[in-house]
Amino acid sequence: MAETASVVNDSKLLDFCVRAFEEMGVSTEDARITADVLVQANLRGIDSHGVARLARYVNGLRDGVMMAQPEIKTVHETPTTITVDAGAGLGQPVSYRAMVQAIEKAKAYGCGFATVRNSNHYGIAGYYAMMALEEGMIGMSTTNAAVLVVPTFGRNAVYGTNPIALAVPADKERPFVMDMATSTVPRGKLEVYHRQEKPLPLGWATDEKGVPTADAGRVLDNFAKRAGGGLLPLGGAGEEMSGYKGYGMGLMVEILSAVVPGAAFLSSVYPKDAAGKPLPADLGHFFGAWRVDAFRPADEFRTDMDRFIRELKGGGPAEGAARIYVHGEKEFEEAERRAEMGIPLGPKVEASLKQIAADLDLKYDL
Amino acid sequence: MAETASVVNDSKLLDFCVRAFEEMGVSTEDARITADVLVQANLRGIDSHGVARLARYVNGLRDGVMMAQPEIKTVHETPTTITVDAGAGLGQPVSYRAMVQAIEKAKAYGCGFATVRNSNHYGIAGYYAMMALEEGMIGMSTTNAAVLVVPTFGRNAVYGTNPIALAVPADKERPFVMDMATSTVPRGKLEVYHRQEKPLPLGWATDEKGVPTADAGRVLDNFAKRAGGGLLPLGGAGEEMSGYKGYGMGLMVEILSAVVPGAAFLSSVYPKDAAGKPLPADLGHFFGAWRVDAFRPADEFRTDMDRFIRELKGGGPAEGAARIYVHGEKEFEEAERRAEMGIPLGPKVEASLKQIAADLDLKYDL
Repeated sequence: MAETASVVNDSKLLDFCVRAFEEMGVSTEDARITADVLVQANLRGIDSHGVARLARYVNGLRDGVMMAQPEIKTVHETPTTITVDAGAGLGQPVSYRAMVQAIEKAKAYGCGFATVRNSNHYGIAGYYAMMALEEGMIGMSTTNAAVLVVPTFGRNAVYGTNPIALAVPADKERPFVMDMATSTVPRGKLEVYHRQEKPLPLGWATDEKGVPTADAGRVLDNFAKRAGGGLLPLGGAGEEMSGYKGYGMGLMVEILSAVVPGAAFLSSVYPKDAAGKPLPADLGHFFGAWRVDAFRPADEFRTDMDRFIRELKGGGPAEGAARIYVHGEKEFEEAERRAEMGIPLGPKVEASLKQIAADLDLKYDL
Repeated sequence: MAETASVVNDSKLLDFCVRAFEEMGVSTEDARITADVLVQANLRGIDSHGVARLARYVNGLRDGVMMAQPEIKTVHETPTTITVDAGAGLGQPVSYRAMVQAIEKAKAYGCGFATVRNSNHYGIAGYYAMMALEEGMIGMSTTNAAVLVVPTFGRNAVYGTNPIALAVPADKERPFVMDMATSTVPRGKLEVYHRQEKPLPLGWATDEKGVPTADAGRVLDNFAKRAGGGLLPLGGAGEEMSGYKGYGMGLMVEILSAVVPGAAFLSSVYPKDAAGKPLPADLGHFFGAWRVDAFRPADEFRTDMDRFIRELKGGGPAEGAARIYVHGEKEFEEAERRAEMGIPLGPKVEASLKQIAADLDLKYDL
């Protein structure tokens, strides 16, 4: 392996992130929430959404496209729904509180939904969906994102990797936690293939004409130049592998997350002013919670979820495969491992954290 | 074309189906609902879920695995949720009324959800989601189904093609209507390839060892013998094209539709008695409705949906492609065409309807 990794303790990493956010003017409570979303991503093995992104948040706060002390407003509210304007603040604290509201409404009425507009990147979708698990509820979360994905039959990227997360409690088994982008792969996977000089499987991305390509460098170069093409929806290009279904899921997420609350959507996200200077991203999010016992007794449901998970895991594996997974299982296992053994940081991420420490005059003690 | 088609008027076709259901002991109101779901599928071009299935319903009613006069019971109810036991009746009437309940609850509280257990095949998922459009709401519908799909890394089919439908109103543009199975393709597509002796694209189905195969006949034969293998989730086998995402969507549908209401799930659907005689299917469904103005003013939302749809459709097409579609567009166009020109029936479907007419002593006047 070319990259040697430092291994750091998750509590220390959390503390470092908190101090960085505080130094940027973020309240201690908001800093703790945001840092926790990042470190939980690392714990669960989703390093692309962990502290590797800390620099982007710090830069966003420094450049004024993310507000450290945003003015957050309730736009509309009913017994079961609420829409919040995030005031261009960090995506994590407003999303955490929106999910709390959805859960509170579900407690009172059976289900609850919260949407957010004028927000920023909120980290891993699964974090918010999983908050419902603590109350024994089913949780859901979606967000729109930077434009990277090409629609079926399209030439240019017009929407984002638009993830959808669903968390469902079980009894003795671990919860079901699905947290997936609706593109076939994320941009980061192209970067890995590019570094390793490997050809992309056809179905991951297109060239600037909208035609599937194996050339990762070309796709990344086109992103940089806004020359067209991009990632493909789950199911790939055209209709043979039903890429229009992944495209449909991506649009579902875009509608729920952005059109419903009145956030920017499609090519309007991450706007720039006339001089090309970035303005606040105006992303949108969608959160939902359902009480299980709004449908039937919770203990029956949880027992059935155990049966459900066991039947899936107990099925015979395909020739050449070792085992069948249920969504969330790998991440729970990884989180246990990393909580004990520490979180590995690649040299690039470590360097970026040290740079943040130097810039903000923080002690780097990981 | 080898198959010559009769073309029939949709009202006459509806009337024929109503009479067939009535003849089987179904009330006029339930017969009209069920027939409408079937004929709407034909109008929208989804012929696999149209009157081609009438014989299966008639046979199910005759054999007592579907009840013509089911005892329908409310299992549980809150302000925003309801769970209904369908009494092994036809899936369509109970689903229609469950969706009406979800909509009524949404009117009163902002959103509403209805789940159904002990039900049967309910036709096209989109029908129920689209009912919300008439009230200017967002509608959702999912159902579990007969076991046909192999999980990622699995050898045997353990869940169904599990469709998900979402309908979202616009203003001047047609609504967004996504209605998709979460497998790459339906079983019917394999039958078409088998008839035409065409190799399957790898990623549609596996052989009995769980390995992707191009041999449609082998997959269909394995289904008949319950020998293993089956359809693949959206994204295909293994991880390269992220088939675990399609698998995750399939499980999401299975949980919401079946585990939530307490219906049969995974391999427990369509049970048989000790002698191998089919028992009621015990399928489950999930229905949801959100009031748009529970989140922000409806007129703003609808105008934004128009912008959303126009931006998507107005994007440049890929090299070799003619246009970009938004979900539901093709089906609305087809429904307009067929309402005017008539619904084409293949010779097999026509023969099955004539057989039903003969068996039930109905006039065949299509």
